[in-house]
Amino acid sequence: MPDPIETVEGWYALHDFRQIDRTVWAKWSPEEQKESLAEFRQILTYWNQVEETRQGSTGSYQIIGHKADLLFLNMRPSMDELAEIELAVDQSRLGQVLRKPYSYFSVVELSKYLVKSERDLTELPGTKERLYPILPKTHYVCFYPMNKRREGQDNWYSLTKEQRREIMKGHGIIGHKYADRVTQIITGSQGLDDWEWGVTLYADDTLDFKKLIYEMRFDEASARFAEFGPFLVGRRMTTADFLRCFA
Amino acid sequence: MPDPIETVEGWYALHDFRQIDRTVWAKWSPEEQKESLAEFRQILTYWNQVEETRQGSTGSYQIIGHKADLLFLNMRPSMDELAEIELAVDQSRLGQVLRKPYSYFSVVELSKYLVKSERDLTELPGTKERLYPILPKTHYVCFYPMNKRREGQDNWYSLTKEQRREIMKGHGIIGHKYADRVTQIITGSQGLDDWEWGVTLYADDTLDFKKLIYEMRFDEASARFAEFGPFLVGRRMTTADFLRCFA
Amino acid sequence: MPDPIETVEGWYALHDFRQIDRTVWAKWSPEEQKESLAEFRQILTYWNQVEETRQGSTGSYQIIGHKADLLFLNMRPSMDELAEIELAVDQSRLGQVLRKPYSYFSVVELSKYLVKSERDLTELPGTKERLYPILPKTHYVCFYPMNKRREGQDNWYSLTKEQRREIMKGHGIIGHKYADRVTQIITGSQGLDDWEWGVTLYADDTLDFKKLIYEMRFDEASARFAEFGPFLVGRRMTTADFLRCFA
Amino acid sequence: MPDPIETVEGWYALHDFRQIDRTVWAKWSPEEQKESLAEFRQILTYWNQVEETRQGSTGSYQIIGHKADLLFLNMRPSMDELAEIELAVDQSRLGQVLRKPYSYFSVVELSKYLVKSERDLTELPGTKERLYPILPKTHYVCFYPMNKRREGQDNWYSLTKEQRREIMKGHGIIGHKYADRVTQIITGSQGLDDWEWGVTLYADDTLDFKKLIYEMRFDEASARFAEFGPFLVGRRMTTADFLRCFA
Amino acid sequence: MPDPIETVEGWYALHDFRQIDRTVWAKWSPEEQKESLAEFRQILTYWNQVEETRQGSTGSYQIIGHKADLLFLNMRPSMDELAEIELAVDQSRLGQVLRKPYSYFSVVELSKYLVKSERDLTELPGTKERLYPILPKTHYVCFYPMNKRREGQDNWYSLTKEQRREIMKGHGIIGHKYADRVTQIITGSQGLDDWEWGVTLYADDTLDFKKLIYEMRFDEASARFAEFGPFLVGRRMTTADFLRCFA
Repeated sequence: MPDPIETVEGWYALHDFRQIDRTVWAKWSPEEQKESLAEFRQILTYWNQVEETRQGSTGSYQIIGHKADLLFLNMRPSMDELAEIELAVDQSRLGQVLRKPYSYFSVVELSKYLVKSERDLTELPGTKERLYPILPKTHYVCFYPMNKRREGQDNWYSLTKEQRREIMKGHGIIGHKYADRVTQIITGSQGLDDWEWGVTLYADDTLDFKKLIYEMRFDEASARFAEFGPFLVGRRMTTADFLRCFA
Repeated sequence: MPDPIETVEGWYALHDFRQIDRTVWAKWSPEEQKESLAEFRQILTYWNQVEETRQGSTGSYQIIGHKADLLFLNMRPSMDELAEIELAVDQSRLGQVLRKPYSYFSVVELSKYLVKSERDLTELPGTKERLYPILPKTHYVCFYPMNKRREGQDNWYSLTKEQRREIMKGHGIIGHKYADRVTQIITGSQGLDDWEWGVTLYADDTLDFKKLIYEMRFDEASARFAEFGPFLVGRRMTTADFLRCFA
Repeated sequence: MPDPIETVEGWYALHDFRQIDRTVWAKWSPEEQKESLAEFRQILTYWNQVEETRQGSTGSYQIIGHKADLLFLNMRPSMDELAEIELAVDQSRLGQVLRKPYSYFSVVELSKYLVKSERDLTELPGTKERLYPILPKTHYVCFYPMNKRREGQDNWYSLTKEQRREIMKGHGIIGHKYADRVTQIITGSQGLDDWEWGVTLYADDTLDFKKLIYEMRFDEASARFAEFGPFLVGRRMTTADFLRCFA
Repeated sequence: MPDPIETVEGWYALHDFRQIDRTVWAKWSPEEQKESLAEFRQILTYWNQVEETRQGSTGSYQIIGHKADLLFLNMRPSMDELAEIELAVDQSRLGQVLRKPYSYFSVVELSKYLVKSERDLTELPGTKERLYPILPKTHYVCFYPMNKRREGQDNWYSLTKEQRREIMKGHGIIGHKYADRVTQIITGSQGLDDWEWGVTLYADDTLDFKKLIYEMRFDEASARFAEFGPFLVGRRMTTADFLRCFA
Repeated sequence: MPDPIETVEGWYALHDFRQIDRTVWAKWSPEEQKESLAEFRQILTYWNQVEETRQGSTGSYQIIGHKADLLFLNMRPSMDELAEIELAVDQSRLGQVLRKPYSYFSVVELSKYLVKSERDLTELPGTKERLYPILPKTHYVCFYPMNKRREGQDNWYSLTKEQRREIMKGHGIIGHKYADRVTQIITGSQGLDDWEWGVTLYADDTLDFKKLIYEMRFDEASARFAEFGPFLVGRRMTTADFLRCFA
């Protein structure tokens, strides 16, 4: 059995995608609409407070296209807090018009693939900031889940540790090249959700998502071994932006 | 034809996942809501009584993400009792707001892969407790169905008994390593549901689900031969927790 | 081109799976509910009369899990009669709450794979009873559709007649072993529905479904060549049982 | 690059499958129901008139099983006419209860695979009748879409013209054998819908659909190269039959 | 790692497919219907004004079949403008009956595959018109997304730059052959949506879509390396045509 690479985990993440049911929303009186937004505003404010006190992080996004209208992305120390967040949205008045077309549950993960040092991963500089990240405030976000392939000759989990490390090196080089333009948060979801990893990208130019993914696809890690789930792209919303979706 | 490995079966299991239709729920009067919860509380109480008298086992969980809101997991000596349970939920007043997005029907299974003894499986110590398990009261639960692959060179069912036993040995070693942190219940579903097995994991730390599955994926049994269905993760609910979902 | 094996066909079968829409049902007055059940009872009675006069056969089942609540399985000499049956259910008052999540249209089929005789299949003893079967009154039923694989080296339809006959022999031996516990009805659906065959199993012990399918999976016919659709399992309902689903 | 085979096209076809929403239908007053049917009857009459004047062809069918309740199959010289037909159904009063679970857009196609002559396809005897067919008035209809496979060694589009012609010859022989019992209309849909071809079969005995498809599956064109979509089977409806679906 | 080919990007594109919910629409009073159309007319007018001032381009289409009723295709300099467009449709009164069955987010892309010159792509003649295209006013439109395959021996991303250039040459020749009849707009969507590219074709004869795609399928780029998503075909709508869909 090939040797697994050491990983270390940080905050749990819930990518909670929502679709607005505008038929139901339109049936509410202006009074009901106003009250439901006021209540929801408190939820958003609370999430921001949690981030300010570094007990988690939060981001709200408008998603483009039919797959979802909104994304509430929250990171917290435990699954319980994320389950409470989902329940709070569902139980809010506005929750009645916020359908759940997709979601992703995972945990921030750092792996030792690109680390030369023999020290414990948790001792490396910057590790704490990467395990417990404050979500970047860039204008755009991109999320997709992925697997490492296990098919015939292209079976990632049958490669040796050295082979995997070598392949990941090329992957890392491309990531580095885009480091000043795209921030990447890797979350692991083996045993937590349907794919093995979630990738959340942050940038101020949507074109950088395309360029990064395009270039990486030629890299062996992606060309031979990556299987991709849906791609969901959005833009950051302030509370005011959020309220404008219901104007 | 390769020789099948002997299996022995215990209680039947119904993993009954539910989605709360909050649009319908919100239309009910406070009176109707209260009555529906009081009625459902009796159902939960009855399930607990069945467990106390060891005529079955029961667990209720809040599931994270869009795939389901709740899981009622019941184990009973016969499919009839499980069919009655599903019907009781459907016919209860609350049942009208409990949609069925997913479910799994299977039966607790022990196989002789990891048993050296030539004795009948049912005579081994601890077998009774494993075939008729009282569901662990840990904080978290994880469920996923799986198949053994039958593709080209990676065809589990064309391997000899000895090859399969050898491959399962590595699998077992990892399971043992996590034994004090993760309790694993294997249920067989060939002829009963769409996948061949269901795996239900119990732990007090969700990270242990990830670590166990991650490590196992490098093992040949998973790397070459496992196909995984959806992963659903939740946390245990007391009756009070359940009622709080409808507060 | 490999030589096809001779087949002979009997009654057409419609596996008509239904989901009860309890939200709509709950909105009806007790009067409306009662009338709808009285009307539906006549449909069930009529199906039973058809069976008594050997002009077809019928079975009603409660299905476990989220895939369906009910199965009406009818066999008749022509597709027209089955189309009329489906229409009668849809047009009945109760039909308004009986959604159609799944169905299967096929025809009872006997093939010459396991027949040594050179005589016409229709002349063999017992053939008539097998082509025009009265559905067993066992307690449980299991249905699944399947294909023979056509992939690379595992292409059933590129094998010679003798190869196929040899492979089916092993399959037949397992079937025989379970013959006193599991009754198997094979229906062909090439050109009629999405899979090539439907398999309907009858037994008084659900465990026998599991044991039969488990054992068969090691047999080459299944290991290399079978692709399986969804498995749906249920228990037989009398008219009284049916009415109890709406109590 | 292998040489494509010449094709020639005739009428466009829209297979417009519909599901009756009986919950909505039941809410209409007898008056509204009656008016909606009278209006729809005019649509059916108009389609028949178009056929009588040879400006197109039309067929209405009751489909068996859950995949659809009805099929309106119309052939016309242009996509515009078919788009108008779909719109007319959608905008009719009855259209509000005619959901669209499936459809297929394609164009009648003849290919030169089985033609020895060097003459232009359009000059061959019978070509006009085959390109602008009056839909057979047989009792049953069967529709399925299909692709030619492009996988590893089984890549239809990498074969030479001669190889493809040879393989199609066996296919044609079986078709001929059933010619007096099954009428086959091939429509091409590359660039028009999700599969490459649609196949519409007409027969007075549903068993002939099964026998034809069963026999063809052993032929190399199907065994190695065919991928099949859903199969939908129905029976022809007169206007009176159609009205009876809403009785 | 094979060398990626240089690409250059222009306007962002949102293919926003919509389904008309005629059950909800029919419930509105004539007054409400009229007002909702008047409001939507302003949206269409505004899109046309944007095109007139070359700050983007726009097209509205009636889609044939069940996959969608309408397509609003808009191109703009940024994703923000497209997100605002989607929101404006959703928030309009008519938006309540315009469900979102499908969509595609991508960006106009030119690649250097077919360019001999060593000059920067952006300096080539005609580049500006191709990166910021005014959508053709032909009668028909066809959209489909696609991937380059990454399977075993057929892995596009493992080929060398020269191999890919050679293969794309054949592809280009066919495109050229149809250049006067079919206008093709390629949009890239790696990192933006579920497939790698979107292809939007414009022609005055739907048959040209079929002929182009049919011929291309024999070309190695498609035969070995292309994976196709759904095909959606429609016809251009003026504002008057659009209003007629709600008559």
